[in-house]
Amino acid sequence: MKPINIGLLGIGTVGSGTFAVLKRNREEIARRAGREIVIKIIADRDLEKARCLAGDGIVVTDNVYEVIEHPDIDIVVELIGGLTIARELILKAIAQGKHVVTANKALLASYGTEIFAAAHEKGVMVAFEAAVAGGIPIIKALREGLTANRLEWIAGIINGTANFILSEMREKGLPFETVLDQAKQLGYAEADPAYDIEGIDAAHKITIMAAIAFGIPVQFDKAYIEGITKLTREDIRYAEELGYRIKLLGITKRVSSGIELRVHPTLIPVRRLIANVEGVMNAIVVKGDAVGTTLYYGAGAGAEPTASSVIADLVDVTRMHTADPMHRVPSLSFQPDLLSDTPVISMDEVETSYYLRMHAVDQSGVLADITRILANFDISINAMIQKEPDEHEDKASIIILTHLTIEKNINAAIAKIEALPVIMGQVIRIRIEELNNK
Amino acid sequence: MKPINIGLLGIGTVGSGTFAVLKRNREEIARRAGREIVIKIIADRDLEKARCLAGDGIVVTDNVYEVIEHPDIDIVVELIGGLTIARELILKAIAQGKHVVTANKALLASYGTEIFAAAHEKGVMVAFEAAVAGGIPIIKALREGLTANRLEWIAGIINGTANFILSEMREKGLPFETVLDQAKQLGYAEADPAYDIEGIDAAHKITIMAAIAFGIPVQFDKAYIEGITKLTREDIRYAEELGYRIKLLGITKRVSSGIELRVHPTLIPVRRLIANVEGVMNAIVVKGDAVGTTLYYGAGAGAEPTASSVIADLVDVTRMHTADPMHRVPSLSFQPDLLSDTPVISMDEVETSYYLRMHAVDQSGVLADITRILANFDISINAMIQKEPDEHEDKASIIILTHLTIEKNINAAIAKIEALPVIMGQVIRIRIEELNNK
Repeated sequence: MKPINIGLLGIGTVGSGTFAVLKRNREEIARRAGREIVIKIIADRDLEKARCLAGDGIVVTDNVYEVIEHPDIDIVVELIGGLTIARELILKAIAQGKHVVTANKALLASYGTEIFAAAHEKGVMVAFEAAVAGGIPIIKALREGLTANRLEWIAGIINGTANFILSEMREKGLPFETVLDQAKQLGYAEADPAYDIEGIDAAHKITIMAAIAFGIPVQFDKAYIEGITKLTREDIRYAEELGYRIKLLGITKRVSSGIELRVHPTLIPVRRLIANVEGVMNAIVVKGDAVGTTLYYGAGAGAEPTASSVIADLVDVTRMHTADPMHRVPSLSFQPDLLSDTPVISMDEVETSYYLRMHAVDQSGVLADITRILANFDISINAMIQKEPDEHEDKASIIILTHLTIEKNINAAIAKIEALPVIMGQVIRIRIEELNNK
Repeated sequence: MKPINIGLLGIGTVGSGTFAVLKRNREEIARRAGREIVIKIIADRDLEKARCLAGDGIVVTDNVYEVIEHPDIDIVVELIGGLTIARELILKAIAQGKHVVTANKALLASYGTEIFAAAHEKGVMVAFEAAVAGGIPIIKALREGLTANRLEWIAGIINGTANFILSEMREKGLPFETVLDQAKQLGYAEADPAYDIEGIDAAHKITIMAAIAFGIPVQFDKAYIEGITKLTREDIRYAEELGYRIKLLGITKRVSSGIELRVHPTLIPVRRLIANVEGVMNAIVVKGDAVGTTLYYGAGAGAEPTASSVIADLVDVTRMHTADPMHRVPSLSFQPDLLSDTPVISMDEVETSYYLRMHAVDQSGVLADITRILANFDISINAMIQKEPDEHEDKASIIILTHLTIEKNINAAIAKIEALPVIMGQVIRIRIEELNNK
C-alpha cells in the first residue's frame, strides 16, 4: 500500500524526537500500521536547523501554509504549541481535509470543542495523545479502554517539573527556591517556569481529561488552579509524620451538583501507589464504577516519550483513516452531538478534607478557641498535633486534619481563626484526598 | 442508528458482570459507542439461572449454536472459557461473519494465531482485552498506545491469587499452605488452584502479550513456567533484608538470540513501583525504546473489572465494525501477514541474575569451595550474607546474589555446589530482575 504522508509543523524538541523515532523504528512501525509513515515536508522558522535534521528527500520550508496546503499530505502534525498561530493552522488543515495530530494542550484545553467539531464536520480525525502526560497512553485508556464505566474521578501527577521539585524538597529537606534553581540547571524547568509551578500546565491536562471522562466540553476557564510556590518543607515534613505525601494533583470528579475541576497541592496517603511516584515521572489514577481504580505511569515529558504518543496517533490515523467517519472513535470519547451540559462547579462548593497549620501563642485556651470556630462551621477534626515551641520562642505550631467539609466553610473558618489575637500570621491550608477505591 | 446486537455464551461470573454493567451504564455507553449495545440472546447450561438474570425480552437457550447462527447477532461474546468447546464456537462464529469478543486466555495463548488468521480472512474482529489483567486496558496500550516503540521487555504481576498469597506471606510471616487456605476461604483461589499458583494462568497472559509486543505468533508451549508453591517465608524475609521483594512475574524480553518467555518467582528492587503492588491487584511494566518504562495497574480479576474490558471491546467493535477490514487495528498489533519468526529461546539460554540460598555445615573452607565453583562457571558475586547457625544447630544459611549469568551455567554450578559434602539439601534458586529504565 502507498505510504501515509506527514507534514510536520515545528521541529523543536518533540518534532526532532518524532523524526528520530519514526526513522529508527520505521520498519516495525510500518509492520504495525500496514504501510509506511513518511515525513514529506517540515516547516520551521529555523530553516538551517530543519534542513540539517531532515537530510535529503524531505522538503523544508519556513512557510507553514505550504505544509497545510500540500496536496500529498495526509496528516498534519502540529508541534508549534501555544495559542497564537496553532489554532488557525489546525482549523485550516482540517478545512483542507487533512487529519491532524497535535501535542498542544494549551490550545485543546481552551479551543478543543471548536476544533473537534470542525474535524467531525469535515470527517477528519484530530488526535492528541501527546497533549497529556507525555508517553503514557492515558487518552487512549480514557477514550477507549474504560468506555464501559461511569467514570467517577481522575487524579494525576501530570507535571513532571512540579513533581521533581516536591520530591527533592522532601528527600533533601530543601526549600522551594533552591530546588527550583536546581531544576532549571538540570533542564527540568524552563527559564520562565510559571506554567509548571503555578499549575497551569497541569490544569490544561486535567481539563482535557475531564472532557473525555465525563463527556463535557473543554472548559479551561472553569478550572481552579493553585501551584506549589508557597509550599514549605515544614508542611512536607509534617505531612509525612501524619502518613501523607504532598503532590501537585490535577483532579476532576463527578459529584451530585456537577463536575469538580481543580489543580492544587494535595496530601495523599503514603501507602497509595501514586504517592510513591517521584521525580519527573507522571502517573494518573482513574476511578470507574466497574473497573475500580486503575493507574497509568510513565515519562510525562521529553523528546522521545512525547514522540511515542505522537507516532501512536499517526499509526491510529493510518489504521483508521479509510473508515466511515461516522464510525470512528470520537475525539472526546463521547459522540460530539451527545456532550453533556453538566456544569463545572466553583471551588467554593467543592467538598474535601484539609490540612491546616498555624502558629499560636503558647497560652491556655488557644485550642478551645480554634476548635469552637471549626465546630461553628460544622467542621469536625480528624487529627491534631501541637508542636511545642522551640527554645527562645513562644509560638507553638498547631496542625489539624479535618474531616470532609465544604471549601467555602473552611475558608470562612480560617478567616475567623486568623482574626484570633493569639494566632500569628496566616493559616496554611492544604487539601487532602484519600484516593481510595470506594 | 440501529443497536448492535450481542449474543452471550456463558453467564457465569464475568457474564453476569457484563450483563449488569451494560444495563447500569447503558445510556453512557451508548453515548460513547454511537448506538445502543443490546444483549439479544444468552446461552448457558443453567437455563434457570440465565432466565432469572436475563429477565424479559432476552432469549435464553442452552443451545450455543442458536447464538452463533442467530441472524440478528453482530457480536458473539465467548465467556465459556477453557479449551474444549470454545475454540470450535469461536471459529464457527467467525465463519458466520460474527465479530467475537472473548476473555479466554487459555485458548488464545495456544490457538490465537489460527483464530486471528480466520478472523482476518473473514474480515471480522476478534477482541480480547479481558483475557489479560482483568480491567487494565493493557492489550490496548500494547496494540495501539505504544506502536511507536521497539518494545524491549514486559514484566507483569498478572495473577492476583499468587500476588495475594505472596503479599500475605510477607506481611504476616505465614507459610504458603496457610495463606493458600485463606485465599480459598476468601474466594481468591479456586478449589483447584493449580492454574494460579503453578504459574499457568500467568503464562497464558504473558504469551499473549509477547505476541502483541514482538509481532510473533502465540506460543504457549514455548513458555517456561515455574510457580510459587516452593517459596518459603525465609526467602521472602531474606529478600527484604537485601532490598528486594519476591513477586510471581510473567516476563517477556527481546534479546539478541530471540524472545524470552517465562513465568517464575522473581526478586525485584523494593523501590520499583511494581514491587509495591500488593494483594489481588495486577500491574504490568512495559519498556519501549522511545517511551522508556510505563506501568499499568488495576484489578486483574473479578466480575465487573473483567466486564469493563469485555464492554470496552464491544464499544471498540461497535465503533469500527463498518470500517474497511484492511484498515482496522490488527488483533496482534502487527499486520497478520507480517509476523516475525524470531524464536522463543529456551530457559537454558536466558541471562539473568540469581538469589541462591543454601545450608552449609559451619566449618572453615565452605565459602571458598562455593565461590570457587561459581568462579569456574564465570559467575560473579554481587552480595553475600552468611547467617550464623541458631543455637543447637550447626548449619549456617548462606545467601548469595549473583551478577548476570546464563541459566544453564547457574544450574550446572548449583549441581556442583549441592554435591559438596558440606552442603545440606538443595540450593534454593530464585531469579532477580532489576526492571530498570536502561
